[in-house]
Amino acid sequence: MSKIFVFGHQNPDSDAIGSSYGYAYLKRQLGVEAEAVALGTPNEETAFVLDYFSVNAPRVVESAQSEGVNQVILTDHNEFQQSISDIKDVEVIEVVDHHRVANFETANPLMMRLEPVGSASSIVYRMFKENNVEIPKDVAGLLLSGLISDTLLLKSPTTHASDPAVAEELARLAGVNLEEYGLAMLKAGTNLSSKSAEELIDIDAKTFELNGNQVRVAQVNTVDISDVLSRQAEIEEAINSSIKSNGYSDFVLMITDILNSNSEILALGSNTDKIEKAFNFVLENNHAFLKGAVSRKKQVVPQLTESFNV
Amino acid sequence: MSKIFVFGHQNPDSDAIGSSYGYAYLKRQLGVEAEAVALGTPNEETAFVLDYFSVNAPRVVESAQSEGVNQVILTDHNEFQQSISDIKDVEVIEVVDHHRVANFETANPLMMRLEPVGSASSIVYRMFKENNVEIPKDVAGLLLSGLISDTLLLKSPTTHASDPAVAEELARLAGVNLEEYGLAMLKAGTNLSSKSAEELIDIDAKTFELNGNQVRVAQVNTVDISDVLSRQAEIEEAINSSIKSNGYSDFVLMITDILNSNSEILALGSNTDKIEKAFNFVLENNHAFLKGAVSRKKQVVPQLTESFNV
Repeated sequence: MSKIFVFGHQNPDSDAIGSSYGYAYLKRQLGVEAEAVALGTPNEETAFVLDYFSVNAPRVVESAQSEGVNQVILTDHNEFQQSISDIKDVEVIEVVDHHRVANFETANPLMMRLEPVGSASSIVYRMFKENNVEIPKDVAGLLLSGLISDTLLLKSPTTHASDPAVAEELARLAGVNLEEYGLAMLKAGTNLSSKSAEELIDIDAKTFELNGNQVRVAQVNTVDISDVLSRQAEIEEAINSSIKSNGYSDFVLMITDILNSNSEILALGSNTDKIEKAFNFVLENNHAFLKGAVSRKKQVVPQLTESFNV
Repeated sequence: MSKIFVFGHQNPDSDAIGSSYGYAYLKRQLGVEAEAVALGTPNEETAFVLDYFSVNAPRVVESAQSEGVNQVILTDHNEFQQSISDIKDVEVIEVVDHHRVANFETANPLMMRLEPVGSASSIVYRMFKENNVEIPKDVAGLLLSGLISDTLLLKSPTTHASDPAVAEELARLAGVNLEEYGLAMLKAGTNLSSKSAEELIDIDAKTFELNGNQVRVAQVNTVDISDVLSRQAEIEEAINSSIKSNGYSDFVLMITDILNSNSEILALGSNTDKIEKAFNFVLENNHAFLKGAVSRKKQVVPQLTESFNV
């Protein structure tokens, strides 16, 4: 068997990097030649994580076949448009994920392990346990970071009842204080001042096909929503340019306050009526407040999916 | 939480019935109000199984919502066109399956447990073990039958390295001799003389969407291929009528010799060139021999998928 790539989604976040890094390690312990790679460079939060645990960033690959790889394992995603460029030409042999399933198809049976939990890293943690493989400190640190990142330190409604115990155990193995390390890590991801508007709208962005529309949903974390809104003009310019060059029907930006767990939604595109209906709010000057919303997966995408399908 | 339906695919076989019956039992032990239902009446093989273990056939339902059920668990299938009529209007909260993934989509994250093993029943068996729930004799019998049916008594190439041990343990719990019971059960499914041609082509049939074509792939088990071919004229008439009334582009019938593990392929429709290319054979009088082929999933559907996608 030749080498297998393990990777998370495009625009990788800490869970995409953590879950793929951890799962590739586990597969190697089980005798599989697996390499964790990435579909993009780490964001600032993930860069903090990698630096903290002295792990090199997984190398960025453009396609699998150009590297002589024909079999891949996906972590933290399954939708093809969020995956590697030649996903349709390679065999997906495994998926470890915690998202909804869409735009995913295989020719052959595969191993698929999806759980509606806080992070893909939580599932990888369980798979270490099931296989009786010890989790080294760096792997524990990266898995923990994936879980903290995706659940905003266990505060997001995506947090599963089983996640707090996973976080505690991983923190112990990683040798960190959960609260202290978690806040430091999340804050590292909120430094937006050094980002251009083009970079900002692409830090954590995914495309969803909703009833034939390509809808881009991006999220940025901050400790002060008004700080980000002060740059609204240049952000809108970047969004409109991204819509035009990528053919998106809509662009939804979640500006998420990680301290108070709310989001401001900034939306531009052809279906703002559907977006307003999805969240039962009225956009003023293209944005509106969404109280208690921090999770794209649970509090934004399902609502958009339903609204676009009417 | 209101009641949840657990069911296998349309035209249920022993694995569809066995895995749904077993998994619904497991969910109930875990405190979930789950009922195993079926999307059709048992075939002769499954009727033998139910009778042997004194289990009533799960009741047949047409839709979930008409029964006041909004959440469902799929076993032994994931493709929507093989599922309940109102699958798109209900929430799929879990899938336990061993097939390829296609035409499957959810709005929300879910529990998905797919493994490339011999039967969905094998996976359900493992989930009992993981949850430390004892497997009663009737459940063991039905799970065993699902595994025997799908792997033709562990002879099909779909048999996974882990399946023989599963079969042995289930046979022990069910109180049967694996070989004796298995052969008796499989032979019960080969009695085709009482079937009309219309019934015969529908005993175990699934529709696959291949590059925009609706391709029907049916399979019948026999101990004598020539026996079935002696009825070719009436079978072809039934197939042509089924193609016309259901809008299939093609109809592929596998006539499988369960003693010698070969199949004769009878194919009618608009893309026989693609079907010949898929199997690298020439149809004569609409049929051709496919040596060693017993598995629709592993030896027929992937080949068709590739050929239709060119």
